[in-house]
Amino acid sequence: MFRLRRTFLSAVILLAAVIGLTAEQGMWMPQQIPDLAARLRALGFVGDAAAFADLTGQPVGAVVSLGGCTASFVSPDGLIVTNHHCVVGGLQFNSTTQRDLLTDGFLARTRDEELSNGPGSRVFVTTSVKDVTADIMGRIDATATDRQRNDTIDRRIKERVATCEKAGLRCSVTSFFEGLKYFEIAQLEIRDVRLVYAPAEGIGVFGGETDNWRWPRQTGDWSFLRAYVGKDGKPAAYSKDNVPYKPAHWLKVSAQGAKPGELVFVVGYPGRTMRHRTYAEIKETTEWALPRSVRLAEEQLALVEKLTANNKDMAIKLAGRIQGLNNGLTNNKGVLEGLVKGGALDQKDAQEKALVAWIAATPARQKQYGDVLPAMAALQAEGEKVRERNAVMGSLSSASQYLSAAQTLYRLSVQRPKSDLDREAGYQERDWSRIRESLDRLQRSLDATADRAFLRWALGLAAALRSDQRIDPSDRAVGLRAGLPGTEADRAIDLYLGRLYAGTKMGDRDVRLAMIDKSTADLLASNDSFIALASALEPLAESMRETAKNRAGAYARLRPRYMQALLAKAGGLVAPDANSTLRVTYGQVKGVDAKDGLFYKSQTGLAGILEKQTGEGDFNAPKHQIDTIRDFLKSPKGPYLDPAIKDVPVNFLSTVDTTGGNSGSPTLNARGELVGLLFDGTYESVSSDYLFDEAKTRSIHVDTRYMLWNMAEVDGATNLIKEMIVVGAPAKAREKK
Amino acid sequence: MFRLRRTFLSAVILLAAVIGLTAEQGMWMPQQIPDLAARLRALGFVGDAAAFADLTGQPVGAVVSLGGCTASFVSPDGLIVTNHHCVVGGLQFNSTTQRDLLTDGFLARTRDEELSNGPGSRVFVTTSVKDVTADIMGRIDATATDRQRNDTIDRRIKERVATCEKAGLRCSVTSFFEGLKYFEIAQLEIRDVRLVYAPAEGIGVFGGETDNWRWPRQTGDWSFLRAYVGKDGKPAAYSKDNVPYKPAHWLKVSAQGAKPGELVFVVGYPGRTMRHRTYAEIKETTEWALPRSVRLAEEQLALVEKLTANNKDMAIKLAGRIQGLNNGLTNNKGVLEGLVKGGALDQKDAQEKALVAWIAATPARQKQYGDVLPAMAALQAEGEKVRERNAVMGSLSSASQYLSAAQTLYRLSVQRPKSDLDREAGYQERDWSRIRESLDRLQRSLDATADRAFLRWALGLAAALRSDQRIDPSDRAVGLRAGLPGTEADRAIDLYLGRLYAGTKMGDRDVRLAMIDKSTADLLASNDSFIALASALEPLAESMRETAKNRAGAYARLRPRYMQALLAKAGGLVAPDANSTLRVTYGQVKGVDAKDGLFYKSQTGLAGILEKQTGEGDFNAPKHQIDTIRDFLKSPKGPYLDPAIKDVPVNFLSTVDTTGGNSGSPTLNARGELVGLLFDGTYESVSSDYLFDEAKTRSIHVDTRYMLWNMAEVDGATNLIKEMIVVGAPAKAREKK
Repeated sequence: MFRLRRTFLSAVILLAAVIGLTAEQGMWMPQQIPDLAARLRALGFVGDAAAFADLTGQPVGAVVSLGGCTASFVSPDGLIVTNHHCVVGGLQFNSTTQRDLLTDGFLARTRDEELSNGPGSRVFVTTSVKDVTADIMGRIDATATDRQRNDTIDRRIKERVATCEKAGLRCSVTSFFEGLKYFEIAQLEIRDVRLVYAPAEGIGVFGGETDNWRWPRQTGDWSFLRAYVGKDGKPAAYSKDNVPYKPAHWLKVSAQGAKPGELVFVVGYPGRTMRHRTYAEIKETTEWALPRSVRLAEEQLALVEKLTANNKDMAIKLAGRIQGLNNGLTNNKGVLEGLVKGGALDQKDAQEKALVAWIAATPARQKQYGDVLPAMAALQAEGEKVRERNAVMGSLSSASQYLSAAQTLYRLSVQRPKSDLDREAGYQERDWSRIRESLDRLQRSLDATADRAFLRWALGLAAALRSDQRIDPSDRAVGLRAGLPGTEADRAIDLYLGRLYAGTKMGDRDVRLAMIDKSTADLLASNDSFIALASALEPLAESMRETAKNRAGAYARLRPRYMQALLAKAGGLVAPDANSTLRVTYGQVKGVDAKDGLFYKSQTGLAGILEKQTGEGDFNAPKHQIDTIRDFLKSPKGPYLDPAIKDVPVNFLSTVDTTGGNSGSPTLNARGELVGLLFDGTYESVSSDYLFDEAKTRSIHVDTRYMLWNMAEVDGATNLIKEMIVVGAPAKAREKK
Repeated sequence: MFRLRRTFLSAVILLAAVIGLTAEQGMWMPQQIPDLAARLRALGFVGDAAAFADLTGQPVGAVVSLGGCTASFVSPDGLIVTNHHCVVGGLQFNSTTQRDLLTDGFLARTRDEELSNGPGSRVFVTTSVKDVTADIMGRIDATATDRQRNDTIDRRIKERVATCEKAGLRCSVTSFFEGLKYFEIAQLEIRDVRLVYAPAEGIGVFGGETDNWRWPRQTGDWSFLRAYVGKDGKPAAYSKDNVPYKPAHWLKVSAQGAKPGELVFVVGYPGRTMRHRTYAEIKETTEWALPRSVRLAEEQLALVEKLTANNKDMAIKLAGRIQGLNNGLTNNKGVLEGLVKGGALDQKDAQEKALVAWIAATPARQKQYGDVLPAMAALQAEGEKVRERNAVMGSLSSASQYLSAAQTLYRLSVQRPKSDLDREAGYQERDWSRIRESLDRLQRSLDATADRAFLRWALGLAAALRSDQRIDPSDRAVGLRAGLPGTEADRAIDLYLGRLYAGTKMGDRDVRLAMIDKSTADLLASNDSFIALASALEPLAESMRETAKNRAGAYARLRPRYMQALLAKAGGLVAPDANSTLRVTYGQVKGVDAKDGLFYKSQTGLAGILEKQTGEGDFNAPKHQIDTIRDFLKSPKGPYLDPAIKDVPVNFLSTVDTTGGNSGSPTLNARGELVGLLFDGTYESVSSDYLFDEAKTRSIHVDTRYMLWNMAEVDGATNLIKEMIVVGAPAKAREKK
């Protein structure tokens, strides 16, 4: 699925006049779209391409970020549509043992019935994007050390963000084109978000993990939220007295969906792509990082299987982790297949050899770019020397929520006494409420037995590290050393973990939240064993961060020049790599020759739900929906029928260029009407994050006809259909029985 | 896969002038083809349809049965082509620890290098088919009891077979159209069959169990045998002095394969279909027989997993059983899906209701057919009362090779003293050499530990039987009874099995073979514990056979009349259900809308082998082939290139109507040239054995272009290409490196 599970910290636009051959590829900055007008006209677009460049206009102004997912306003009263898989947290938050909203779905028939989507739930409305490249990168002394360069950039970003946020907005300064450009993005941060409607899990997650990243697909991946603000119209924390937010723009919903061959746009917040990384970097990803991720995910899933066997409570607590591991595992396997077997790595190699030859071809280019690739290669080689240790340091924190909470608390206590601009990014005042919310929300998934099992596994990774890459603090704490036989290491780890979990109150929500305001000394005085472990690990963690800052300074010197060479050689319009900022992509509804002997047709229908339905596991649509589909297919008719397939279109494929973070993005037709929601990509597409495959890449959308049909015929969400402006065929809604 | 794992004991033709709407469906008797000439012309056939009716002419005369598989002559020197999966036994028989022919493949470069395909290997050449309906069914007294009817038919068949076989042929009398017609089929039985060429397992079984019954497919499922006869030209046992058989007809091999839309014929020996069974019978199959088979196969596969864990020897011994269980399991699941979910059962119900209404429509029909369906329903209800017990009796024998060998020996000893015509079918003199060969061949797969584990499982089924369906002899022998707690039953079974396996020499090849000629008294005097068990079970087995004879007599009275009603209502040309006799089917090379959102293209290519290759398990093509494919695809050219797909076509789909037993059947173009070999059907097709699905049914073939390309470019089988008459583009063969 295309939901981001992490946020990326990391803005730039280079407008050239020529349209490249690979124009179909591209998560374009909205400002770039007018330059693509000729290509769009060729694809049948009759509207004004310039409209897409207006971030606060129609339709782009209707698109919002949920932080990891994308969504869009579909009514003047702040009604928002996004993917079902983007509101799972809110459904879980509102579920009780009596009322399982995730399984059964939820519909608020009136505003009063709308439920808070939970603490930390946010809607970000982008209000301005400014090119601040000169402010961030200008006047840096050429003789500055890498560290000075890093610190200068870091300081300037913090200063701009601080100034920007004085207007009550949430701001960020983001690098585009590998640091060649920086943009300051200001967003309205709406903090009262409410749950309005989600179909039953058997509809919204139909196909489950079995069908994740796969086609054919029949997933009803939509849900509705509503943004609320204070009576003054400004963002406010949840309050009964808040009123629906009145967006400047909202999308009309088409009852005609998207037809094969039709031009469609997707507007959203794609998280991260690595298309402008060097061959050496992609090679390391292919040969080391991805195989390691696959292996670690498989080990953790094996652990999960043991932990959750005959333990439903544990399965519920670990559901998020399991879903994340599976989602990432399948994605990583797909990327590896595309890079290695699909030949993308070889293609990247050939492209870079062509770049090197291009640079070598003239003395001017040699002078300008000749040193860049070798210098980047040297930096990479240096980093690879300690990559195993650094990766395991990361695994310790990600394995144990107890440890990562302790580390967050410890670092916060160290940063808090400083002036806000001197605090590390992520630990400034602007971050504190997010930190508090996440330390609070943690309780839902926390389990000492599971946490211990995962930390035991991660310490096993540490125990197995080579002698030149040991994590000394954990070696000392646990009593590990290079070459210690496995059984002895296991025994030492178990002894240590016994003490560790006996000596902590990190699992107690109140104790944990009370630690937020404590000084470093008070934290240490609490004698909490996890605080002690975090403290012991801190010097190494700090030295790793120091190294990272030096490297970041060096890359800030090199990467923009590498990108300049790439752009100069390309000589055309190029989209920057995705960086969680607003992008526009376009393409056609289109099937694909997915594999030898196999063609993915561009649409699926209700009949496919009956085909796959087993009544259990991943294929467990509600009986009421199945009965309604059976009735419909006996004599297919009504406003949502596609006569070409004699069925209601459920999901469709398109050639648009999307990635994780795009989940929930509105799919628009040439008139800017909502025709679908982007929710996934195919397995054969995922390596396009590294190198775009024009032939095989397809995104997966849910058709608005399925959404409207199900709202009208199955879920009786008449109130919402009435609230939206549905264009095309009228929706004959029916009350839910 | 389409290999038959059992042979069916059961031979009619009804020639009507009108072509039905479902003319595409049909495993036609060769004699019926001339009546389909108009339909064939509509599909583009320009040849003489009457040629197909000549069983001893071209091309049908070139097609032979291997007993469970089909094959065809492709040279005047008795060279035979069939599927790879039809010669696995021969490859295993010739393998040694030093030389694994199954894994590595085999190529005889000269006649001298050709190896015996093993004892029991046969080639059957059909020499005549006679309508003997009057001889078998004529002049049976209308007042005869069902038992008398059965015995009369049985005796007449034996007499005709005995007379026919005096000419040195192998003969059978087979019921067609549910006993409405009987045909006597005479075949030349060639007993010296030699292995000539098989590709490596990674080519011949590429895709393995993962891809079995699936599309897309890239399996090189071909192999070559040669038929040898005595110097006098007559069938003879294997001897160095034998000479290649000179067939009257052999097929030309097309280097052009089969193109999408092309008309193709398949001539072969399909095993069994159940399209003319009643709704009640199909319903019982759906609700009881198939779910039971699925459950039992899954239980046995779980047992296999335990037995073969870390035990490669055991895995090799059980390979045949594992393959059979998996093949049947997937097939049965596919049939269930098609019958239940695909709606075939409902369709059958509607068809039968229409038949009942048709019968009720006139007094003449009521008189002629009115009693048939109720009488058949009563027979079925009677049979269902003891079906669990009867099925478990079958499971005991199929679970334990020790027990089935003992039962065969015991029954043979009882039958041998009788006159040959009085002996039970299967125990006549004509069967003795087959019995000896199978008791000999058994040794390859025999293992006391595995046998005991399977018998333990089957006795567990017996232990769980309801009180009114107990198997008394095994209850007494083991100490079981209805309602005995599971743990007590397990203990009793284990105690019994300890004694059973300690008291037998059935696992000793020489002892077992020596028992063949012993009298019943001598067998019992040997005190072999399995002979004792077989003896104990015999009275119940005999009473089951007696009941079966009475039922068979009743069905012989009823089924022909049911079929008459069906045919009269259909009013057109209908193909009889498959019964392991020679049939001709035709169709087009065609893809299929297999599932919602998914289209199976009609062809695959070499590129698909690279896509799927993992270098292990089911996708482990030899490195030499992979390298050759990579080279080929860099610049695709040569006589086997299909310009439309810029690749060598590997497998293709067609609409021909086939089933188990058709494996290895030649696929012919309109000129009667070999363009492919039939080897499988799709998962979505398997329920067509019960009710033909015109939209979804597809057969899977290997294209001769892939076979010839691989023979020339990978395996260097130049000698064979030279021996065959290759038409179309010339085969530029290359010597193997």
